[in-house]
Amino acid sequence: MNSEMAQMIAGTLQNGVHHLAARVYYADTDFSGFVYHGRYLEFFERGRTDFLRLKNVHHTELAEGALGGEPVVWVVRRMEIDFKAPAKIDDLLLIQTEVESIRAARVFMKQSISRDGVVLCNAMVEAVMITTAGRPRRIPDEWIDSFINKAKI
Amino acid sequence: MNSEMAQMIAGTLQNGVHHLAARVYYADTDFSGFVYHGRYLEFFERGRTDFLRLKNVHHTELAEGALGGEPVVWVVRRMEIDFKAPAKIDDLLLIQTEVESIRAARVFMKQSISRDGVVLCNAMVEAVMITTAGRPRRIPDEWIDSFINKAKI
Amino acid sequence: MNSEMAQMIAGTLQNGVHHLAARVYYADTDFSGFVYHGRYLEFFERGRTDFLRLKNVHHTELAEGALGGEPVVWVVRRMEIDFKAPAKIDDLLLIQTEVESIRAARVFMKQSISRDGVVLCNAMVEAVMITTAGRPRRIPDEWIDSFINKAKI
Amino acid sequence: MNSEMAQMIAGTLQNGVHHLAARVYYADTDFSGFVYHGRYLEFFERGRTDFLRLKNVHHTELAEGALGGEPVVWVVRRMEIDFKAPAKIDDLLLIQTEVESIRAARVFMKQSISRDGVVLCNAMVEAVMITTAGRPRRIPDEWIDSFINKAKI
Repeated sequence: MNSEMAQMIAGTLQNGVHHLAARVYYADTDFSGFVYHGRYLEFFERGRTDFLRLKNVHHTELAEGALGGEPVVWVVRRMEIDFKAPAKIDDLLLIQTEVESIRAARVFMKQSISRDGVVLCNAMVEAVMITTAGRPRRIPDEWIDSFINKAKI
Repeated sequence: MNSEMAQMIAGTLQNGVHHLAARVYYADTDFSGFVYHGRYLEFFERGRTDFLRLKNVHHTELAEGALGGEPVVWVVRRMEIDFKAPAKIDDLLLIQTEVESIRAARVFMKQSISRDGVVLCNAMVEAVMITTAGRPRRIPDEWIDSFINKAKI
Repeated sequence: MNSEMAQMIAGTLQNGVHHLAARVYYADTDFSGFVYHGRYLEFFERGRTDFLRLKNVHHTELAEGALGGEPVVWVVRRMEIDFKAPAKIDDLLLIQTEVESIRAARVFMKQSISRDGVVLCNAMVEAVMITTAGRPRRIPDEWIDSFINKAKI
Repeated sequence: MNSEMAQMIAGTLQNGVHHLAARVYYADTDFSGFVYHGRYLEFFERGRTDFLRLKNVHHTELAEGALGGEPVVWVVRRMEIDFKAPAKIDDLLLIQTEVESIRAARVFMKQSISRDGVVLCNAMVEAVMITTAGRPRRIPDEWIDSFINKAKI
């Protein structure tokens, strides 16, 4: 296990859109035979977390006060999720993540999960950075430039 | 363990609104110290499932073809979720569930999770009944009367 | 939601053995049609946590330093689990938990999950209390008397 | 997303031992700050499933009757798990899986999870192949030769 492996499983950025592969295992499914609807939120979280990782923003460091001394964590404020078609065991999924806009402490992201080019699930996510005391923490200006998908402008 | 116990943990219906208690355990939390956002969907699912149970609609029976012979399962089509304040370990939560409307195979539900009278999370849920072949299955007329909150009319 | 409700969902102690009811929901199952094997560990955790709750030991208070000022958490060190028969959707399960012995910072527990008097799953669990710095924290003497099943002596 | 990607995230076999990388996300952790003990079972399941995948044994195909016409699924019968040191958010884990022995319908596997060469968790797993009617299904002879780690003999 090394930096090559670390890089490999963090996905890739293409024109500001993060791409991450994920396999469906037993744990992700329910007795209907398909992926449990709540598990898609875990796939989406992986996408957002690895988007940030490739932008050099790490949960561990944030929780240790890397951003001006005060520990901060990410919190999801709102999600809109459209479940369009089901994923199932052994499926190989593609999670796509991009930042739509940023306002103060809030980041608005657009995400999708697809299989063989067919979208199974779409999500709009509003995430907020807060201090461990619960106060919103403004997104640093340098992140804004880095996060927003320039390729679309 | 008996029918008394079974009844007790299925919650109660009050004026068409289902009330269910749930405790927050280690498994529900994440390293931020709060409940993981994806786990609220499990609490909401418990509410919907036990609402149905008190209406005498059971997943097991549906999957065994109780509704006209063809096995059916519930699928979530769309969710809008507002995470307003965090729940944490040991919290005692109240899950509230009510049916807003029904159209063909689709049921629209309004749900909330609160602690000590303060709402932590709201959700609008669109669920669909489908056959195991993936076709929508119309909600039986007698369920419509039973599901909709008459107290509000 | 009140203290009556709080008491009700924490289970009961009978001759030193804790009894807790749990329902199987969609989230607990996998595509095999049965409960996912990893989810039994969540049911067992609920049993241990509510055993402690009835002994007046609360995760929140421990994490806030109630035990001599230093924050402590519980960690599972070892588990042996026998999956004897599967649970499935809508099942009403009984989780039983008792303390076998205590040595320094370690508590040895015996747990089972059953349905209608038939045991589905057995577990032996070794849990340790540690400080957030990772050092074992000796179990207080007064807990030892309280935890051990006197009825068996 | 293509066959190259599919191959990449299924891990590798080295002298009969399967190696799979996994990242720790928010969803895997609990409020203690570490990975929730029950989630290690999901990491272990990924290792076993991808070991089988590289041996050309797929859950989907088994459930569809690829093995002599009768649908079969894998069930875990027994696990012994030693949690030696905690994993935490952002950790890059290595899951190692090898088959120790096979008897009739039962496969005995040895698994570990490590970080930077340090073992965090060990497991002995007994899995059984059963028909959907619940009867054990003998492991095909050709699998036995393929599964057992020849490099050790």
